[in-house]
Amino acid sequence: MARPKSPLLTTGLIAHAALELIDSGEPFGVNALARRLGVRPSSLYNHVSGREEIIELVRGLISRSYDFTSADVHALPWPEAIEEYLRLERRMYTEHPNLLPLIATLTVTDDTAIAAYDGLATMLVRAGFPDDDVLVVMQLLDAFALGAGLDYAAPGDIWRPLGETAHLGRLLETAAPGRERSDRAFELGIRVLVSALQDMLTERTQGAAARTAD
Amino acid sequence: MARPKSPLLTTGLIAHAALELIDSGEPFGVNALARRLGVRPSSLYNHVSGREEIIELVRGLISRSYDFTSADVHALPWPEAIEEYLRLERRMYTEHPNLLPLIATLTVTDDTAIAAYDGLATMLVRAGFPDDDVLVVMQLLDAFALGAGLDYAAPGDIWRPLGETAHLGRLLETAAPGRERSDRAFELGIRVLVSALQDMLTERTQGAAARTAD
Repeated sequence: MARPKSPLLTTGLIAHAALELIDSGEPFGVNALARRLGVRPSSLYNHVSGREEIIELVRGLISRSYDFTSADVHALPWPEAIEEYLRLERRMYTEHPNLLPLIATLTVTDDTAIAAYDGLATMLVRAGFPDDDVLVVMQLLDAFALGAGLDYAAPGDIWRPLGETAHLGRLLETAAPGRERSDRAFELGIRVLVSALQDMLTERTQGAAARTAD
Repeated sequence: MARPKSPLLTTGLIAHAALELIDSGEPFGVNALARRLGVRPSSLYNHVSGREEIIELVRGLISRSYDFTSADVHALPWPEAIEEYLRLERRMYTEHPNLLPLIATLTVTDDTAIAAYDGLATMLVRAGFPDDDVLVVMQLLDAFALGAGLDYAAPGDIWRPLGETAHLGRLLETAAPGRERSDRAFELGIRVLVSALQDMLTERTQGAAARTAD
């Protein structure tokens, strides 16, 4: 039998090539992806419905390579588990900075990514957060991890004043490099958020206890 | 005198057209912008060095339309001033969601944007934050506002589980709409961050006082 000229197209192959294209920094699009795979765009459309489905496949691929649902993380007390979760999510964004803007504003449907968020929801429910707060807390944590990923992806010199400033220019001259500051900002943010969640839970629990005692 | 066929190209006109193109949701690029302005790309290059300079012009345009350096804000006690600042920054991102990924990872050089960040730096220096902390705190606040902007720009149904979940599906069924949750998450985040900064400042100040007393 003659060997096929090109490997058979599968959604797995499409996702891998799409991630490579995104990581390369070249603009992402169905046509560019087809060129990279050496196929016609119409061949891609035999496997996926379009740009959004491809990005969602990439989200699945990347979610499987960061172990959000690891038993180790979920065995930790919830405040530490949340810290680990945030570190992992930020690492995912810092290691694939071009992916962040593509996946951030797309509905999550991929099974593995949903399982990761479901794990976080379960963690918060078990910790004792009222149902009404769980998704809000998840969106706050997600926003923080996304913002931290964007901050890390920013160039080393985030601010470059071209004229006089009251303080900014002076502070930049003696400051640590941008990414070192980004790490410090992230650690500060984690500490602050997790400790605020602990306070919030205490308040909610005491409030509920007081209502029960009435 | 005959009227010119098209308005004279200026950096101001380029910035306005670029913002319109970005807000329209069409992919942003020099060629697309030239088409929108009815000029050849080479004409654009007589005024700007390329894509990055255009985006920086747009950052300037947008920064001038949100009054970050307003005397009213800067007259507030610093914790409230920071809250106002964060609300303004998030509003800028929610009103121009497509701009966010473009400006987030580009060095800030525009005068008005630099003045906004310089104002924030001055606020933190005057509040008493040590020089070493000011830029870190600024990056944390910026990351939070960026993430909150991305969270708001996300579709109403951020998560759409296609299979069984432990809790996520159940929570989504009875949850408030995504953007209402996004507002709540942002308000929770503001409260948490500003109160943590107040604690941090108290610690730092007490630490410095203790060292002076030694």
